[in-house]
Amino acid sequence: MKPVNIGLLGLGTVGQGVANILVRNATEIERRAGRGIHVALASVRSQGKNLAGTLGIETTNDPFDVVRNPDIDIVCEMMGGEQPAMDLIMLALEQGKHVITANKALIAIHGNEIFAAARKHGVIVAFEPAVAGGIPIIKAVREGLSANRIDWLAGIINGTGNFILSEMASKGREFSDVLAEAQALGYAEADPEFDVEGIDAAHKLTILASIAFGIPLRFDAVYTEGISKISTDDVKFATELGYRIKHLGVARRRADGIELRVHPTLIPEEQLIANVNGVMNAVLVQSDAVGATLYYGPGAGSEPTGSAVVADIVDVVRALTTDPLQRVPHLAFQYDALSDLPMLAPEDFECAYYLRLQALDKPGVMADIMSIFGKLGISIEAILQKEPIDQDAGSDITVPVILLTRSVKEGLIQNAIGQISALNSVTEDISMLRVESLN
Amino acid sequence: MKPVNIGLLGLGTVGQGVANILVRNATEIERRAGRGIHVALASVRSQGKNLAGTLGIETTNDPFDVVRNPDIDIVCEMMGGEQPAMDLIMLALEQGKHVITANKALIAIHGNEIFAAARKHGVIVAFEPAVAGGIPIIKAVREGLSANRIDWLAGIINGTGNFILSEMASKGREFSDVLAEAQALGYAEADPEFDVEGIDAAHKLTILASIAFGIPLRFDAVYTEGISKISTDDVKFATELGYRIKHLGVARRRADGIELRVHPTLIPEEQLIANVNGVMNAVLVQSDAVGATLYYGPGAGSEPTGSAVVADIVDVVRALTTDPLQRVPHLAFQYDALSDLPMLAPEDFECAYYLRLQALDKPGVMADIMSIFGKLGISIEAILQKEPIDQDAGSDITVPVILLTRSVKEGLIQNAIGQISALNSVTEDISMLRVESLN
Repeated sequence: MKPVNIGLLGLGTVGQGVANILVRNATEIERRAGRGIHVALASVRSQGKNLAGTLGIETTNDPFDVVRNPDIDIVCEMMGGEQPAMDLIMLALEQGKHVITANKALIAIHGNEIFAAARKHGVIVAFEPAVAGGIPIIKAVREGLSANRIDWLAGIINGTGNFILSEMASKGREFSDVLAEAQALGYAEADPEFDVEGIDAAHKLTILASIAFGIPLRFDAVYTEGISKISTDDVKFATELGYRIKHLGVARRRADGIELRVHPTLIPEEQLIANVNGVMNAVLVQSDAVGATLYYGPGAGSEPTGSAVVADIVDVVRALTTDPLQRVPHLAFQYDALSDLPMLAPEDFECAYYLRLQALDKPGVMADIMSIFGKLGISIEAILQKEPIDQDAGSDITVPVILLTRSVKEGLIQNAIGQISALNSVTEDISMLRVESLN
Repeated sequence: MKPVNIGLLGLGTVGQGVANILVRNATEIERRAGRGIHVALASVRSQGKNLAGTLGIETTNDPFDVVRNPDIDIVCEMMGGEQPAMDLIMLALEQGKHVITANKALIAIHGNEIFAAARKHGVIVAFEPAVAGGIPIIKAVREGLSANRIDWLAGIINGTGNFILSEMASKGREFSDVLAEAQALGYAEADPEFDVEGIDAAHKLTILASIAFGIPLRFDAVYTEGISKISTDDVKFATELGYRIKHLGVARRRADGIELRVHPTLIPEEQLIANVNGVMNAVLVQSDAVGATLYYGPGAGSEPTGSAVVADIVDVVRALTTDPLQRVPHLAFQYDALSDLPMLAPEDFECAYYLRLQALDKPGVMADIMSIFGKLGISIEAILQKEPIDQDAGSDITVPVILLTRSVKEGLIQNAIGQISALNSVTEDISMLRVESLN
């Protein structure tokens, strides 16, 4: 069979990864796909890139040339950003071209519109590279677990954040110190907000939740909390209690709705995902038939993400002759079978909590605190009261108190924090982290 | 669209799992597949099974009724054993029916013949349930990693063996003691040979190697070594050296051929797969573009394996309208693009080794041993010499010596073991285990 012609939008980190893989593994890929994959045209920001020349790829400065090229069957969008990526994708779909995109923000925010257009034109939009880089997590959840009702999933889906937390845990370093190193190593952007505040993870979680539960994409409903306030004390106390702190994206189906949340989380150290360190990603999925499955690998990078783009190309090539209505649906569930389930607000989230407070080392203080929990019906799983840390001679002596609650609604915990903060014997802001046993 | 009719061969553990899932998750599955899945007929060993009645499934005692039924589009073989499973599958293919099978032994040994027949008749044989139960590992390797040249894979692919090794490691128990418990718990068969001697793992490894490297199924070429000779001493010393012992299936592509081997293996404790415990399975795959990815989950059981069967059903339903030559090839690579690569014999395998020997506690003994390694060009990575263990007053005092070598051909290690065993100062059989860093 004659080769399939593809067009690349962008020859940056991911685009170069795709181009390199297609050249280096051309034989291996053709042995699988049954036909060659030929890069007909690539758009670049500035003409004459060395790589494009080395690989013999024709280039253009105008990405619309790629989308309008009648010889191109599949367009791979690897530019990032909202525009012109959105216009290019919509135009490609109108032209009857299949699209592969690594653009997680675009899918999370505009995916419903994009998929509706794809359906109208009978073409595929594939997005494996948009979540967890080279891990075939979209395929696993959308196809591998199709027999299951998925109860929840929890993922380490931002490598920069995981690198920072891993370094803090293994070396006792401060957040700001590790962030600076991550920036120097190129793991973190100059503006690290997308990574460390959880926005990037929220984009990916939005996509994972849709394909797991069969709901439209609801980026607006994700509660997002970053890792910049995690202290070395929290890391140390969590370890003492047998936990690791990870920046998790959690999507959970409850009787009354869906929880979508990204936040630092204490996980028991014996959980496999608690031992995923450095820039690696992992997603744990709990389903009714298979139980727990976990998918681990590099969540970013030129060739890992390129690997996902090329796997999508091969999938699209294989589905070219398939009746469009019989193809794997974009969001795993048939377009007309998505359920717009209610999204829970943070006060209705339910999990266990870790609270760290600094209290006067005096009789009656713990009784006051425990009385507040008791009146609110919050059960305490563990208490860790530490020796006083060296303090100014003149001041009252205070000690750190760490509490682990049992599972409870977040509204109640916020209420408890409010009341405990108001006690004169509690001298500093209370640090609150969520705890997930992941069982 | 009208439902797809499927036939079940066998309503044992896996068959019941499939039936339960199809009833319980009927809506969820139809929302994904776009059409219902209807069990038209199931074969059972003895008529009138309660479950079949409860679920409203029509049954027969003659499995050939299922295969010959003209209303049935897809046959799921979950009987196990060689015959009549083989005849049933071949007849189903002749009748133009698609087949899903959980029968790892049958695919490993007769897969080449089965796939040739499927190709001739333009139908699919799917076998996700045959490897690692509910983990979608066939899909991940065959489709998710299609961009990659796969270098090697290593898997914990027998839950019984992993349960035994996990218990030995965490509780210092003897092999025979844990095996008896595993049998009592129903994890191990009355005849545990298939599990603990690695035959079951060798079946699965055969299949994984074919889809990873694009080679025909070569069960005959797998070197297999069981875990029954692992002593509590080996477990203890491995732990002291920072390793865990796991029963791994390893498939590795070398310049001169393919290594296929199943054996107990020391793995560095910081490797994620070293922390996969109990009956859980995991497969680590090293590929050139994505790097390392790992897939973890339950490797057996009624609904985990049933989950894989049902996922295959949905996949087959989706591919019904696809040009047969464009479907995912059975062994990942196009039928005419398989490479019959040479298979390496055990003496040409290459890895690092752990040797435990018992030697007289006298001057010159270590020099003799090290001189043998030196002459053979074997580098030593670590030596652990232990205090004498309480011994009979009359005998010479001996001490355990543990050596870790660097990577070397197995033929050389066997040579060294032969020479060292011949030394008068070495008093017992030498225990040899392979070591894989998995980097």
